[in-house]
Amino acid sequence: MDYETLQNHYTRFLSSRVADRKLRAFWSGALPAHVTPHPDPIELAAGMPNEGLFPIESLHVNVVDEPFAHEQYAVRARQLHRDGGGRGEEFDSRAFVQDRLERGSLVDVWRYDPDRPAALSGAVAYQYAESRGQPQLLEFCRRIVQRINPPAYDQWDVTLAHGSSDSLFKVFETFCDAGVTVLAEEFTFTPTVSNIVAAGGTVVPVKVNVTQDAESQGIDVEFLADLLDNWASSRYAHLSKPRLLYTIPTGQNPTGTTLSQAKRRQIYDLANKHDFLIVEDDPYGYLKLPAFDRADPHHNAYASDELSVDDYCDKVLSKSFITIDTVGRVLRLETFSKLFLPGVRISFIVANKFLIDRIVDFADVSVRAPNGIAQAVLVNVIHHWGTKYHDDLQGWLHWVMKVASQYTHRRNVLFQALYSTDAYKKGLFTLTEPSAGMFLTLKPSFEKSDKFPLSERERALDVFNYKLLEEGVKVVLGTKMIVCRELSLDRSFFLRITFAYAADDLQLQEAASRISRAVERLFDEY
Amino acid sequence: MDYETLQNHYTRFLSSRVADRKLRAFWSGALPAHVTPHPDPIELAAGMPNEGLFPIESLHVNVVDEPFAHEQYAVRARQLHRDGGGRGEEFDSRAFVQDRLERGSLVDVWRYDPDRPAALSGAVAYQYAESRGQPQLLEFCRRIVQRINPPAYDQWDVTLAHGSSDSLFKVFETFCDAGVTVLAEEFTFTPTVSNIVAAGGTVVPVKVNVTQDAESQGIDVEFLADLLDNWASSRYAHLSKPRLLYTIPTGQNPTGTTLSQAKRRQIYDLANKHDFLIVEDDPYGYLKLPAFDRADPHHNAYASDELSVDDYCDKVLSKSFITIDTVGRVLRLETFSKLFLPGVRISFIVANKFLIDRIVDFADVSVRAPNGIAQAVLVNVIHHWGTKYHDDLQGWLHWVMKVASQYTHRRNVLFQALYSTDAYKKGLFTLTEPSAGMFLTLKPSFEKSDKFPLSERERALDVFNYKLLEEGVKVVLGTKMIVCRELSLDRSFFLRITFAYAADDLQLQEAASRISRAVERLFDEY
Repeated sequence: MDYETLQNHYTRFLSSRVADRKLRAFWSGALPAHVTPHPDPIELAAGMPNEGLFPIESLHVNVVDEPFAHEQYAVRARQLHRDGGGRGEEFDSRAFVQDRLERGSLVDVWRYDPDRPAALSGAVAYQYAESRGQPQLLEFCRRIVQRINPPAYDQWDVTLAHGSSDSLFKVFETFCDAGVTVLAEEFTFTPTVSNIVAAGGTVVPVKVNVTQDAESQGIDVEFLADLLDNWASSRYAHLSKPRLLYTIPTGQNPTGTTLSQAKRRQIYDLANKHDFLIVEDDPYGYLKLPAFDRADPHHNAYASDELSVDDYCDKVLSKSFITIDTVGRVLRLETFSKLFLPGVRISFIVANKFLIDRIVDFADVSVRAPNGIAQAVLVNVIHHWGTKYHDDLQGWLHWVMKVASQYTHRRNVLFQALYSTDAYKKGLFTLTEPSAGMFLTLKPSFEKSDKFPLSERERALDVFNYKLLEEGVKVVLGTKMIVCRELSLDRSFFLRITFAYAADDLQLQEAASRISRAVERLFDEY
Repeated sequence: MDYETLQNHYTRFLSSRVADRKLRAFWSGALPAHVTPHPDPIELAAGMPNEGLFPIESLHVNVVDEPFAHEQYAVRARQLHRDGGGRGEEFDSRAFVQDRLERGSLVDVWRYDPDRPAALSGAVAYQYAESRGQPQLLEFCRRIVQRINPPAYDQWDVTLAHGSSDSLFKVFETFCDAGVTVLAEEFTFTPTVSNIVAAGGTVVPVKVNVTQDAESQGIDVEFLADLLDNWASSRYAHLSKPRLLYTIPTGQNPTGTTLSQAKRRQIYDLANKHDFLIVEDDPYGYLKLPAFDRADPHHNAYASDELSVDDYCDKVLSKSFITIDTVGRVLRLETFSKLFLPGVRISFIVANKFLIDRIVDFADVSVRAPNGIAQAVLVNVIHHWGTKYHDDLQGWLHWVMKVASQYTHRRNVLFQALYSTDAYKKGLFTLTEPSAGMFLTLKPSFEKSDKFPLSERERALDVFNYKLLEEGVKVVLGTKMIVCRELSLDRSFFLRITFAYAADDLQLQEAASRISRAVERLFDEY
């Protein structure tokens, strides 16, 4: 498969707007053969400020090697490093930086750094740059893909984007038009629906199984196959056959489910048969959660050192659709938001080279390069971690596993607490344990009371939410994350709960108590 | 004028795509009156990682207070702070940071910083955030506008964007459709033409005067008035009347010209009469260049302390179209790229509140918030400078004037050098001195030789470019920055030259010699 083959096959997937997305560059093109340019030209062409005009001389990022390893301080304390108990103690910021300097935990971003070609220097990072991203970071992303999810074909590449929101925007602007149909899980991250609709497309929901069974959870493949095979006689016969499937295959939002490898294979086969693209949005995939063990609720395979980086890559992580993709029809979306920090606003897209080029064309006439300061911070911090291990990738994956360990711990704490509540013991709600990510679903057992016939449950879920707010817990309602009410309303009476943001174990335990009280009040007072 | 009036008048300017740009949020809305939420709820709703998972404990930005005030080092030296002459000397990075710490030139970004509400803490900046921007930075941008270019009406606001490219993209996606006509200066920053075309619009060029005369340079107002008054009988009669004018009014790219205040008033009156919006792209406005004095070529009003910040704001800077805008039809685009650094990718748009809201709606379903690390760096560095002066705005403007001083110096060096060349003395080229920004135009005096009849000049300009590349100077050709060949080709035989990027005075002087040789060779060898 070469570039031309990709172009021939995938041009028809492009939106009508793609043709008009070409940067009108004003710099000169190729030179005639008889012109021999000077070997050391002076640049009077590019409207770039000389880097001597940049006020940043150097940047020093004080990083921790473990999440929550910062100096002790009260949550939202008045001042960073004041000890929670040490009221009134002054924080000596100079001594603090001095200490970090001595410990070697400052990651330096220098203006010029020719001794470390893998690092990204300020003079480069702070300047105008390529829309695709800085070479060092692109290369690092390619190495992530190659190590963990090697595509089953050669002609793939990556481009950076400004976080997954931007990746999704760019993807749907590149493939959607009026009249384009996009399949999506019936419960999904609804801002993506906004992207599809804003680009003119129509979303058709695919039934999902919200269950703990690892083999059957996620997209209902029989439903999908039937829908596609019988499109012309389906309720969607007035729409064109789908051009794209949007899926969050691992730790799905909001259901927390993960597609088995067998299902991925079946869905990919359907994509081949019906010739659609798969947009695999995977912000949570690295946060793989080993099964919760009620007998040993604090067990955490990450923390107990049972897992090597190789185990993590080869045995723990789900494999991307792109690893079975032989023809370049999968677009994989990763992000640093959940693993580094959301404000870094750096994500990347993996796809066949022809499609990546079209996405870069769009970047060229829109938001252009990802933030230079953020790229410099990310590259240099990863490089710093790399010095402690075999290489940058190993260093990065060690950090990622530490983050996954924190999520596993938080999941453990919350599940133990929820399973211990009175309301759970009375059978007033059920839980679906997530296989990855940050979300679980909680279902009030409406069927236990004749107060809650099916027709009453939408209102009852709202009332449940009010009780939760009165008791002091904020959650998301399943009814708000539906693609199509008609198809899914009756299955949407659940809460999406995340353990990502809570301050600590105590707060998660307190949340479980509050949830229990709210459930009991719902059943008592409704 | 209230919001509803704005909405009533400006809805018709919106592109057809605007209606479909609404974020499908899944969080809950207003509560019924009888629900009293808990005063201290636990957040299990938002899919945000707890900030304890962020690896950055603190960030320390080592800033200089003057451009080029960094430690001495050879250009592109092997290591940052190695002295140009001190070959082999080792750079002691620890001692360097230690020194900066003692000098107080490290700007700290703390995780929590409640003592300094004007600062932006890491815990906030590194988290998911509002598309519009962080409140501290938005407020600072509003203060810039209020001090320097107060709009002539109340209902205005600002939103951040990811650099001017993104501002332009967002503006034209919000106002352009197929069938929409946009006026632009006949020579312009051609990537904007890409934005307009990609959004479906058509660009119609407006004649400009490339002259040194301050009153007549820039848009030819008579041409514009005639075009608009007689649209139906013009060559553009098949197009709709213009919905927008895109202009770079100060230090125009590529011509370096600035519209006089009288012309701004005339153009604004035309906008009222013909009901179009003015998109004022102003990346260079702060780099106002006092007139070059051949008798005293090194004179630099900025460096000689003749100018106070108030003088700069009130007497030096050109006033934005928005200062005469009474009805909210001007969109003003500013950026930190040229004044701070391009990699910061932060710009802002000033316009009436209804239009700003529509642009934020678009941000919500596309790239979302500007980079958090960059916002934190920018806010905290500005705050640091502010501590040395009356307030943040004074501190920022002091820095900006230092940057403008550097551009003035570079302009002085290059002009003195160019005016001293043999080619100039022989009358083989003319120059247009820029009134602001980073660009000047150089015109070969083709009329001096019968080798260059009009029909030959396009080719001759290419040959001139080859000679320049052989001699070792990169420039941009006027012929590449045309909106419409038919209208402008005959006036486009000039070079756009920038003094922004060259390493130093010596390189600018060397560039002048190389240009001179190339011109002479053009006239000799053609």
